[in-house]
Amino acid sequence: MNTIFSFFTPKDKKFQPLFEQAGSNIVKIAETLLVVVTTNDLEKRKVAIKEVERLEHVGDDLTHSIFIELSKNFITPFDREDIHALASVIDDIADYIHASAANIELYNLTHPSEAMIKLAEILVEMSKDLEKAIKELRSFKNIRVIADACIRINSGENQADYVCNLAIARLFEFETNAIELIKQKEILQTLEMATDKCEDAANVLESILVKNA
Amino acid sequence: MNTIFSFFTPKDKKFQPLFEQAGSNIVKIAETLLVVVTTNDLEKRKVAIKEVERLEHVGDDLTHSIFIELSKNFITPFDREDIHALASVIDDIADYIHASAANIELYNLTHPSEAMIKLAEILVEMSKDLEKAIKELRSFKNIRVIADACIRINSGENQADYVCNLAIARLFEFETNAIELIKQKEILQTLEMATDKCEDAANVLESILVKNA
Amino acid sequence: MNTIFSFFTPKDKKFQPLFEQAGSNIVKIAETLLVVVTTNDLEKRKVAIKEVERLEHVGDDLTHSIFIELSKNFITPFDREDIHALASVIDDIADYIHASAANIELYNLTHPSEAMIKLAEILVEMSKDLEKAIKELRSFKNIRVIADACIRINSGENQADYVCNLAIARLFEFETNAIELIKQKEILQTLEMATDKCEDAANVLESILVKNA
Repeated sequence: MNTIFSFFTPKDKKFQPLFEQAGSNIVKIAETLLVVVTTNDLEKRKVAIKEVERLEHVGDDLTHSIFIELSKNFITPFDREDIHALASVIDDIADYIHASAANIELYNLTHPSEAMIKLAEILVEMSKDLEKAIKELRSFKNIRVIADACIRINSGENQADYVCNLAIARLFEFETNAIELIKQKEILQTLEMATDKCEDAANVLESILVKNA
Repeated sequence: MNTIFSFFTPKDKKFQPLFEQAGSNIVKIAETLLVVVTTNDLEKRKVAIKEVERLEHVGDDLTHSIFIELSKNFITPFDREDIHALASVIDDIADYIHASAANIELYNLTHPSEAMIKLAEILVEMSKDLEKAIKELRSFKNIRVIADACIRINSGENQADYVCNLAIARLFEFETNAIELIKQKEILQTLEMATDKCEDAANVLESILVKNA
Repeated sequence: MNTIFSFFTPKDKKFQPLFEQAGSNIVKIAETLLVVVTTNDLEKRKVAIKEVERLEHVGDDLTHSIFIELSKNFITPFDREDIHALASVIDDIADYIHASAANIELYNLTHPSEAMIKLAEILVEMSKDLEKAIKELRSFKNIRVIADACIRINSGENQADYVCNLAIARLFEFETNAIELIKQKEILQTLEMATDKCEDAANVLESILVKNA
């Protein structure tokens, strides 16, 4: 750990708590998405979609607070560009998860597919790894935790790609109703974009690691 | 207003005029889009679409000039990253408005829907607020003007989201022709993306405000 | 050429070789895409799609290496933001080319259209110009080479836009099978997005030119 980092870290009462809240929020939103796609109770699904929306607003406020702190503080615990990138990309994850849930309602999709459930499960795992890695930024004592989380996130993204592509190939092969195909394809792709953004977050974390380890 | 800002502002003969031109250009392009979606005269619509395209090129040249100035000037009236972000996002607004108009022609959409008209109206309001806020960057004397414009733009984006989502839900409910559904959905989503970019512009303006107020 | 640039250039043994490899990789991936869309031999096409995927991974590793170098080095041969932007955008080109090829397989598209072939040809030309411009960054002796390549890339992007738009307009006019329309439209748009990213790369190169010439 370089000295500049150690010097400023103890003083950071601003960014770390906000990032930790943003990390926990991503876990909550992913877990709520999993409820959306797994429940067969339409009322429960509706409530879960509303909750995803609420959590997305919570995330928006956290991103906003991080940007405001960034504007007000000249000295930051790690590179300004990395703080901006990490906050942006966490915001993107929430946006895509929210868009997936919203589209399920919007498109009146009654039966989420197996592939959608699998993607939501992958997102839960990825977000837990993100949360863990973000917490570790506080002390920077066990950077192996961050590195391992990033590796798992990258592997999750590959798996998500595979699941999404296979499902879309099958849609084009077997789904003869074009409107149904559009619905399914768009929701799958939006979920897959959420996993892409998790990978982007892991890349930012890795960049922070390289600079400060 | 911090002293560094006041010191350099009077010298800025480069960025402010370019941003003001870019702001006015966004108003013009949004107003021309409104003509595209409201007129029933197909010839008039065609002329308006051509004009949107011309204005998008004007915007491209302005963005380009701002980037060139940024490359040549070490000292800038506000943060380099904010100048870059503001110019980029204004360019994106023009791009999405242009794409919406172009798709109306490309898809041979003869009757723009009520939702498209509403979205174009919201874009006109948003772009006027953007123009107003950008002009205020010159003196920075009445920052309330910028803050108020940003609040209205944020509220406009929420309204646009609602309008777009409702229209798409109705398409999936009532439109049985898949190709027609694709056309309508894509144009609605492109319009909505233009409003997203207006919100991004408001976020950059707010960031400039926080740093320099 | 400014003195700071001349001072540091001879020392850059890190970024220039990586960028040159990334440039050559883009040429290879574009040429392999051209095989994908021109061959009628389904087995040969399958092998070419696999090769596009492999080259995309090679590109990923190069982007990753550039980002790691950027994290480790305080002094860079040109602006950090430009290095980051150029590496990102080259990565995006590879991603969109890979997505185009993958979708051809995924959607089981047996006959790539004339427009797709034309777009792949344009991408080959653009990537060769990119490669040439990137090589010239090494000596910075003949900046005309960079400027000319950028002009040709911009003109290629305009041509790609035209080809893609015309093909999509024709799809909406003549294709009555909605699922077929979706397939064709998405592949055309993904190819066109790859050409957009080439233009973005040219814009970064131009920015490097303006700052260092």
